[in-house]
Amino acid sequence: MHSLDGVKALLFDVFGTVVDWRGGVAREAATFLTRHGASNADAFAFADRWRSRYQPAMQEVRSGRRPFVALDVLHRENLVALLPEFGIDPAKVPAAEIDELNIAWHRLDPWPDSVAGLTRLKRRYIIAPLSNGNVILLLEMAKRAALPWDAILGAEVVQAYKPAPESYLRTAKVLAMRPEQICLVAAHNGDLAAARSCGFRTAFIPRPTEHGSAQTSDLRAEQEWEIIAPSLTALADQLGL
Amino acid sequence: MHSLDGVKALLFDVFGTVVDWRGGVAREAATFLTRHGASNADAFAFADRWRSRYQPAMQEVRSGRRPFVALDVLHRENLVALLPEFGIDPAKVPAAEIDELNIAWHRLDPWPDSVAGLTRLKRRYIIAPLSNGNVILLLEMAKRAALPWDAILGAEVVQAYKPAPESYLRTAKVLAMRPEQICLVAAHNGDLAAARSCGFRTAFIPRPTEHGSAQTSDLRAEQEWEIIAPSLTALADQLGL
Repeated sequence: MHSLDGVKALLFDVFGTVVDWRGGVAREAATFLTRHGASNADAFAFADRWRSRYQPAMQEVRSGRRPFVALDVLHRENLVALLPEFGIDPAKVPAAEIDELNIAWHRLDPWPDSVAGLTRLKRRYIIAPLSNGNVILLLEMAKRAALPWDAILGAEVVQAYKPAPESYLRTAKVLAMRPEQICLVAAHNGDLAAARSCGFRTAFIPRPTEHGSAQTSDLRAEQEWEIIAPSLTALADQLGL
Repeated sequence: MHSLDGVKALLFDVFGTVVDWRGGVAREAATFLTRHGASNADAFAFADRWRSRYQPAMQEVRSGRRPFVALDVLHRENLVALLPEFGIDPAKVPAAEIDELNIAWHRLDPWPDSVAGLTRLKRRYIIAPLSNGNVILLLEMAKRAALPWDAILGAEVVQAYKPAPESYLRTAKVLAMRPEQICLVAAHNGDLAAARSCGFRTAFIPRPTEHGSAQTSDLRAEQEWEIIAPSLTALADQLGL
């Protein structure tokens, strides 16, 4: 007996929870920066600055000021706006090179426990991302990294960005499940709090180096989540899988 | 060299092409009919009559007369309307029993070549359904039958029923692909013709017993589709997989 009785689907935050976005983006940014004369730039700082534009860009959509657009579109706009911070004039970079760096987000590596954990969890539960990433981003990531999703869900399918309640509630409707039949698995207390407000169960997987070794946020559970586990394989252990 | 050069994704019609809807629905209808005093009824006829209401129900949505609703909703309405034809008063059947028969469509069996063929095709291509079935229908079907989809696409994701052009074109947009980078695989000439009109490549897999042994439709290719193969494993053979 565990605290997920009655749950049929585990839905996962992806950036930070399942994959290491910072390391993956920095890896591809490093070669880009070198090619464009910014070899002294810190590729991790580049990843952090790019990511810092993520929430404000989605907020334009969540607020209703802008119709829904896929995250690839927001990422690209943010990238173009970011380049001058690193001394690069985006007008002098071929569009194809910007496109290519933009889809670094499709090529992020999973944390070491992710594939093994998901594979075990899939035996009993429907597993799918509930990510702000768009479908082709998540699909290409999964194909490259062998993430064994049963489906690709998330913001694009329901046309709403987390943590808007619609992102969780419309996803439950697509799955024809009551919210309490779904557990969100995430490394972020805020995401879990929003999901809980919608009736979802919650599992917290801390990822204390998502933002690097000096990370200060989301190091520990800020509410009594139904499950707290240090990795996805440990989550499978706790669920007897 | 084959005729799918440049193709990145194979999208599949599902009902009839990948799974045997008629046999699966008849199997579950038989027990239902017996339980409700219609044991003399022909369960295959029941499946055929249920299916005959499929296109007219979707046409209400395609025409714009009705907002998009998931196929599970249309199937259930059609089932309730169908029961009197078989001497059953739907008002006397518990709702949970109607719900249960309705999701017979989630439990259809694949044709014998489907899982092996898809598994091979997945090595080179993104594979996903492009079905009028809704997400949870296709997801539960895949989980039960081990269909190894990379994603669940289809009418619900793009809010448009085939063969409306939007169903194909919006799916291409979700995949961030040009239409010619996608091949529709289907047992139905009409579906392929609509996809081709949108710029998709096409592969025809005849399923000459989809409608039973007396089937007269879709026994052969009605256009020069890029590929014609007798099964999904034969398709994998033709593509050198």
